[in-house]
Amino acid sequence: MSFNTFGHIFRFTTWGESHGPALGAVIDGCPPGLALSEADIQPFLDKRAPGQSRFTTQRREPDAVRILSGVFEGRTTGTPISLMIENVDQRSKDYSEVAQAYRPGHADYAYDAKYGFRDYRGGGRSSARETAARVAAGAVARLVIPEVRVRAWVEAIGGDAVTDFDGDEIDRNPFFCPDAAAALRWEAMIDAARKAGSSLGAVIACEATGVPAGWGAPLYAKLDAELAAACMSINAVKGVEIGDGFVAAALSGEQNADRMRPGEDGPEFLANHAGGIAGGIATGQPIRVRVAFKPTSSILTPVETITREGAATEIATKGRHDPCVGIRGAPVVEAMVALVLADQKLLHRGQCG
Amino acid sequence: MSFNTFGHIFRFTTWGESHGPALGAVIDGCPPGLALSEADIQPFLDKRAPGQSRFTTQRREPDAVRILSGVFEGRTTGTPISLMIENVDQRSKDYSEVAQAYRPGHADYAYDAKYGFRDYRGGGRSSARETAARVAAGAVARLVIPEVRVRAWVEAIGGDAVTDFDGDEIDRNPFFCPDAAAALRWEAMIDAARKAGSSLGAVIACEATGVPAGWGAPLYAKLDAELAAACMSINAVKGVEIGDGFVAAALSGEQNADRMRPGEDGPEFLANHAGGIAGGIATGQPIRVRVAFKPTSSILTPVETITREGAATEIATKGRHDPCVGIRGAPVVEAMVALVLADQKLLHRGQCG
Amino acid sequence: MSFNTFGHIFRFTTWGESHGPALGAVIDGCPPGLALSEADIQPFLDKRAPGQSRFTTQRREPDAVRILSGVFEGRTTGTPISLMIENVDQRSKDYSEVAQAYRPGHADYAYDAKYGFRDYRGGGRSSARETAARVAAGAVARLVIPEVRVRAWVEAIGGDAVTDFDGDEIDRNPFFCPDAAAALRWEAMIDAARKAGSSLGAVIACEATGVPAGWGAPLYAKLDAELAAACMSINAVKGVEIGDGFVAAALSGEQNADRMRPGEDGPEFLANHAGGIAGGIATGQPIRVRVAFKPTSSILTPVETITREGAATEIATKGRHDPCVGIRGAPVVEAMVALVLADQKLLHRGQCG
Amino acid sequence: MSFNTFGHIFRFTTWGESHGPALGAVIDGCPPGLALSEADIQPFLDKRAPGQSRFTTQRREPDAVRILSGVFEGRTTGTPISLMIENVDQRSKDYSEVAQAYRPGHADYAYDAKYGFRDYRGGGRSSARETAARVAAGAVARLVIPEVRVRAWVEAIGGDAVTDFDGDEIDRNPFFCPDAAAALRWEAMIDAARKAGSSLGAVIACEATGVPAGWGAPLYAKLDAELAAACMSINAVKGVEIGDGFVAAALSGEQNADRMRPGEDGPEFLANHAGGIAGGIATGQPIRVRVAFKPTSSILTPVETITREGAATEIATKGRHDPCVGIRGAPVVEAMVALVLADQKLLHRGQCG
Repeated sequence: MSFNTFGHIFRFTTWGESHGPALGAVIDGCPPGLALSEADIQPFLDKRAPGQSRFTTQRREPDAVRILSGVFEGRTTGTPISLMIENVDQRSKDYSEVAQAYRPGHADYAYDAKYGFRDYRGGGRSSARETAARVAAGAVARLVIPEVRVRAWVEAIGGDAVTDFDGDEIDRNPFFCPDAAAALRWEAMIDAARKAGSSLGAVIACEATGVPAGWGAPLYAKLDAELAAACMSINAVKGVEIGDGFVAAALSGEQNADRMRPGEDGPEFLANHAGGIAGGIATGQPIRVRVAFKPTSSILTPVETITREGAATEIATKGRHDPCVGIRGAPVVEAMVALVLADQKLLHRGQCG
Repeated sequence: MSFNTFGHIFRFTTWGESHGPALGAVIDGCPPGLALSEADIQPFLDKRAPGQSRFTTQRREPDAVRILSGVFEGRTTGTPISLMIENVDQRSKDYSEVAQAYRPGHADYAYDAKYGFRDYRGGGRSSARETAARVAAGAVARLVIPEVRVRAWVEAIGGDAVTDFDGDEIDRNPFFCPDAAAALRWEAMIDAARKAGSSLGAVIACEATGVPAGWGAPLYAKLDAELAAACMSINAVKGVEIGDGFVAAALSGEQNADRMRPGEDGPEFLANHAGGIAGGIATGQPIRVRVAFKPTSSILTPVETITREGAATEIATKGRHDPCVGIRGAPVVEAMVALVLADQKLLHRGQCG
Repeated sequence: MSFNTFGHIFRFTTWGESHGPALGAVIDGCPPGLALSEADIQPFLDKRAPGQSRFTTQRREPDAVRILSGVFEGRTTGTPISLMIENVDQRSKDYSEVAQAYRPGHADYAYDAKYGFRDYRGGGRSSARETAARVAAGAVARLVIPEVRVRAWVEAIGGDAVTDFDGDEIDRNPFFCPDAAAALRWEAMIDAARKAGSSLGAVIACEATGVPAGWGAPLYAKLDAELAAACMSINAVKGVEIGDGFVAAALSGEQNADRMRPGEDGPEFLANHAGGIAGGIATGQPIRVRVAFKPTSSILTPVETITREGAATEIATKGRHDPCVGIRGAPVVEAMVALVLADQKLLHRGQCG
Repeated sequence: MSFNTFGHIFRFTTWGESHGPALGAVIDGCPPGLALSEADIQPFLDKRAPGQSRFTTQRREPDAVRILSGVFEGRTTGTPISLMIENVDQRSKDYSEVAQAYRPGHADYAYDAKYGFRDYRGGGRSSARETAARVAAGAVARLVIPEVRVRAWVEAIGGDAVTDFDGDEIDRNPFFCPDAAAALRWEAMIDAARKAGSSLGAVIACEATGVPAGWGAPLYAKLDAELAAACMSINAVKGVEIGDGFVAAALSGEQNADRMRPGEDGPEFLANHAGGIAGGIATGQPIRVRVAFKPTSSILTPVETITREGAATEIATKGRHDPCVGIRGAPVVEAMVALVLADQKLLHRGQCG
């Protein structure tokens, strides 16, 4: 779990920049014999793909994935699976201004401070475009954990939260929103933000059901620590909660206790404040994660900043951007949760048989 | 970063159970030549130590640390530093009931599900007692980053937050509370909870100043991802925020932008919504982390649960416990933040010179 | 260093099969700012490339490398460098027999035993074709260690060793042989082996000069342990020696002692039995490694074996193969040594500054 | 596998110096539920222990191991197992001369070059005393692989090899020698070397039977690469061979082919040139490893060297040393092979189920 590789046994490494020729992921440690073709991956990429509605960036990327290795006669061989997605709609000329000045809220200044220079075209490696590789890898991870269902949705945009939950609704609107009424409100909010040259933050919720009690490995690779790292590594994420998260900090011990009763198949829990994890190990309840996405940093409204040479200036970020990057974060969070769970399944099987 | 080891270059491995003969940490990859003796570590252990006021567990542990290797003539040699703390005040008989039934909110059931059985004495490996080893390791980490000041405090207990911040106040009360008025309120709240056989959650805030722009390494070992994993691996933690965290999800792009101006020594930032990290790399601003601790799961109030054999029962957790485990979490969060930063310093120096 | 990734800070991951569409490497942790283009890599691939003389496989692969990420305006950015080499001369139909029976000495049976099935086309992932990715990655590693010169040569073929050493001769014959007379003998030997449907083993020697005293990190990532793992991971390698290797086991302590005298720039050593490494750390002397390659397992001479179903049969391996795979091992050993040294340089700088 | 940690799932970390208060190992990732007590470890330490005959160092260390964590009610819990061995017979005053001058062949100079200074007492961390921790960890590893028998012996001392093999003889002489006649010759040779203030090298052979086909994981964690790293990390080791090793480099393809026939339980191999590993994966045949130990570098005969300040001097290494460190290397090689195999078993189970 270093630099651009994530995972212990089921590991993936991603590469590629926003405006380079391609991006990709190499998955290592995948169990052999799983049926896998591009058709298993493409639907997840399509959910994340840009340019599908006026609520996301207008960059048009087909995000067509190719499997370059690790699959033979339609099945995974146990050797590295190389996935590649070509970039086809770069417009690097939009970024001449970004080359000269730092966009507040962006990684521009930090990359320069670390590396001495940076690929400024579309944010280079720090672009959310990298998340396509995560989603592709996540689709493979799902095949490793057929017993698990991972589903994410948008819970709030710009501070306006859902008040209803209808799982079927999630795929019916462009916001992965489980509440039709909220989706209508968000449409207006995002239109307004876009027209104002502004942007909005969002909260993503993710649930994984079917995770058997026992996955996860204390202490520093606790299931919740891995999920926190996985989600916090996504662009624009600033907070992660497991179960009740910060709300739990305001509860009493009795309120927070997930009481147990004898159930048909192991214990039956009367609540799930813990979000399905205790002591870093899955309890068999649904894993619940919440993730905070900050508003897109690329905004048309000019903001005060400095040039690379340190002079004062203003910058208005042109180019094509999501008015709310959190929306497309939903499939990315799903992918990261699936990737963590696939790895933990193998780790658990490795240690405990 | 697997199982019981954390870090990339500056790595530490912890071992030990609540009621075993001892616990400890092995630190590897420490730079050579640093002045180090037990006296550099003990003060941090003393801050975390139990039994110091009626607001923490009454278990009396001197937590005296011994350095068993890696130091010669008062300086680190660059080889593994083995730290050991002996347990002296175990009362394992308190736990006979815990052996038979699962405490809701605890790791009891999950450990059994994973490993087939568990050391039930005081929670075994899942006990917060393990955090003594983290604090000891964290004290060594601080020596690696003399340019950085790491400071944590309690920001809220049971939902009651500070409204004032006086850094000098933090060490004047038993709650690491920077607000004298809040400390008084908390005293009453915790006394009440303790008497009621209940417990309270808490929020810890931590700030690291002096971190140079450039530390951190995208993408999966982003500075914020490492901090999130480090803090989420602490017992009872259910949420981690960097900078504005979940609040940022309700902001607009303009509100969230940390504007920059030319400063005397690099850029001057006009705000720090980002918590000092952009693109996974430090910006030179203070690193700001918030951590949610759930209420202690061990409560005297009986709660519904099941036995190991699956029968219905009730359990009231006797033994000696913190009414609010988050309080002693403050030095632990400090330690984990220091450990992450020490490692990232060496990683950055390794890659970028 | 797991599965298909090697290294600690400077890490590379390879992917691809002999008869897949492409193969490649992803390099992570590379220092930023190094001048890099395909032209820096191609010459090393050309040295390793097949089909250049009648002494290697007749498969014709241009091995043209493409850099897909991690380089901007001609310099490394510090983010992952993705290298891809397309396969253009697969003839998978040659392998129908291999699909049904196990070639003795090959990985066929072991892959089936591990994974349940295998990509039999050209050996799939177990093919020496994978070493092209190592050589490409090694070319980048060299840029990280400009102070070091790494050079490998063939020291013996089929038990016939060089008796002379002329460094300039190495690139003048198709055997990387530093002894013109031996090269002539080997030509005849390989021709004879090829005509007989047989194959020959080889010993490769490698020397790295300019490695500063101090690189390497005891105990389990000792410089010699890393070199041993790196070289033993190359296809067909069965032995690795550092310095005098097995010969040292027959020496007395006085004979083996590398005496020191005051030199102009640190100590002057009077011998180098140790091969430049003591206690797992470079001494500043030339690093010396010897590597044993077994004879190519793919031979035309029929040998007794079994089918996948366990029936007795004979197999003669058709297809195009190196009569002595060790020859092309020379650039691969060079690459692996460079990759280890680049990583150790960064590790040392990380820990010790 | 970094610095002082070895392994992927079954991992161990060692710490401690020759003349510190203690040394130890922390084992992580051990399967739960294995019966374990000190009595399972001590016999292996006793085999390695010094001071048992005049052919090893006269330092008297009981090497009594204590289990400090990870075992509850006589069984492993799946959490870290901390093993500690106290040093009781240090005589640090013997080393005043070593503090000032570098012993040729030793790590003295290299440690100074790397770390700026060193613990010179008994070689500090570079002492072969560290191998006690490996042996202790190896004893635990054996419990993870009850299906495997690992056995090492001394094959040659000072260039004089065994010509006979009687497995029962190995434990009957102080040389782990399977040839009673050779043991007699070695006795004389070592006595002579000791009296001459000299030392001898040795070759250790190790065989692991019962390893199922399928363990091991290409490409960079190949079973042979892991074994090579494991053995090369042992003090004084300069060469590692798998199967025929360097001899294979002189064979033809037909000679080297391990022909297969249908057997009762999978294939029957007609030879084992490969040493039980093909493509980095176990074939089910016995794993065969050979390891070259250089002669002990600590010799009484004065040799030319330099002081820390760079002045010319001579040094004769007093203190208590093994005249042939390779002898006690046999249990250490056994331990390392067991440790690799335990880890590979868990890795294989993790990936392939």
